[in-house]
Amino acid sequence: VNLLLLNDEDLLPDGTALLRGRRAAHAREVLRSSAGDSLRVGRLGGQVGTGRVLAQSGDELRLAVTLEGPPPPRPGLDLLLALPRPKALKRVLLQAAQLGVDRLVLLNAARVEKSYFDSKVLAPAFIERLLLEGLEQAQDTVLPQVLIRERFRPFVEDELVGLLPLGSRFVAHPAPERSAGCLDPAAGTRTTLAVGPEGGWVPFELELLEARGFQRLSAGPRTLRVEAAIPYLLGLLAAGRR
Amino acid sequence: VNLLLLNDEDLLPDGTALLRGRRAAHAREVLRSSAGDSLRVGRLGGQVGTGRVLAQSGDELRLAVTLEGPPPPRPGLDLLLALPRPKALKRVLLQAAQLGVDRLVLLNAARVEKSYFDSKVLAPAFIERLLLEGLEQAQDTVLPQVLIRERFRPFVEDELVGLLPLGSRFVAHPAPERSAGCLDPAAGTRTTLAVGPEGGWVPFELELLEARGFQRLSAGPRTLRVEAAIPYLLGLLAAGRR
Repeated sequence: VNLLLLNDEDLLPDGTALLRGRRAAHAREVLRSSAGDSLRVGRLGGQVGTGRVLAQSGDELRLAVTLEGPPPPRPGLDLLLALPRPKALKRVLLQAAQLGVDRLVLLNAARVEKSYFDSKVLAPAFIERLLLEGLEQAQDTVLPQVLIRERFRPFVEDELVGLLPLGSRFVAHPAPERSAGCLDPAAGTRTTLAVGPEGGWVPFELELLEARGFQRLSAGPRTLRVEAAIPYLLGLLAAGRR
Repeated sequence: VNLLLLNDEDLLPDGTALLRGRRAAHAREVLRSSAGDSLRVGRLGGQVGTGRVLAQSGDELRLAVTLEGPPPPRPGLDLLLALPRPKALKRVLLQAAQLGVDRLVLLNAARVEKSYFDSKVLAPAFIERLLLEGLEQAQDTVLPQVLIRERFRPFVEDELVGLLPLGSRFVAHPAPERSAGCLDPAAGTRTTLAVGPEGGWVPFELELLEARGFQRLSAGPRTLRVEAAIPYLLGLLAAGRR
């Protein structure tokens, strides 16, 4: 945890915050805070700043909060992701929050196992906990929006256009390798990256995405797991935006 | 598993291979192979090809093996990594094999907890199992070499030059952001990427690396966990090599 996230209800009218439970324990046991220390804090959905430890006792932590700056700039990214197996999904949710993804659509696809949609990881409270953990890691305060869509075709045909702004669209697919020197997502526009299931997109899905303006983007000749492929591809795309 | 890795001792003089245990069970239960099917195989350290299922019974799988092509090309990458906590190390080992890292040096640094060097994950058999899993994912056959070095300064001052070939050297560090349009690791040369511990390199370490030709490379304004930072930075660097 590189930042303690504060909710509106933590913030008291006198400019202090009172934390209990997980965050108070983390400050005490991991950050080894004591009275007078300054901790990095952020208001969920808002600014970041510092929290000076006023008092710490038992299960409580009281901070004098100063919020003074914006959270890190966002890369302008949306992810369209074939729902991965639950274990991988946990890591992907952590990563999406760390990497500043604005919108994460968890989508069905022909090669997604139907049982994945019954995973407890998809419970809103479970998703939120992982996203918050990712924000605390990346010192960000803005939660990605997560959408779950169990039907591929209606989503891509009817909902995609309204939901994900026009901009650069890429679909991860092994071949053919793009040979351009430097990827160039049009500067200043948003990027949507679509990443398929373990076995890849089926041709119909790929065609439907390409018909919606998604260009193929390869992570190279190696088949990466989704939790390695996502940051790798976002690194590739980030290089093009520099 | 996208490829079954065969050891020399699996390969019989008549061009067949006899597998038992984990790989035979995987073929039967996950790949749902049956006689006549072709499975993707590779010889550890050698070529890739196909294994036609000749017979499958109980715990045994017999394949007619044809090795016919090279494993995927390698990006020419070495990683110098401050030893992460054991849980992250497991993922990093998987990733290093997936991403085709040639040499992974697990190094001490001021902000590495000493207890990490006692982790069971560092046992050679444990490391190898994770690397093999990464190779099977990426359809590669070439194991990264893993070195463990408990002293930062002697390694960087005395061993680094002989061990990691000259080429482009980068050290991951939050600031300042490189503003060059496209990173340009000199084409055709090898790349070494150094990634620090959770709390970052201390100034002395950074200076010593910079004195050895490492240029700072930022993953952006977000503090990423090592298992997200490594593929992200390798994606950034790969974009520069295209």
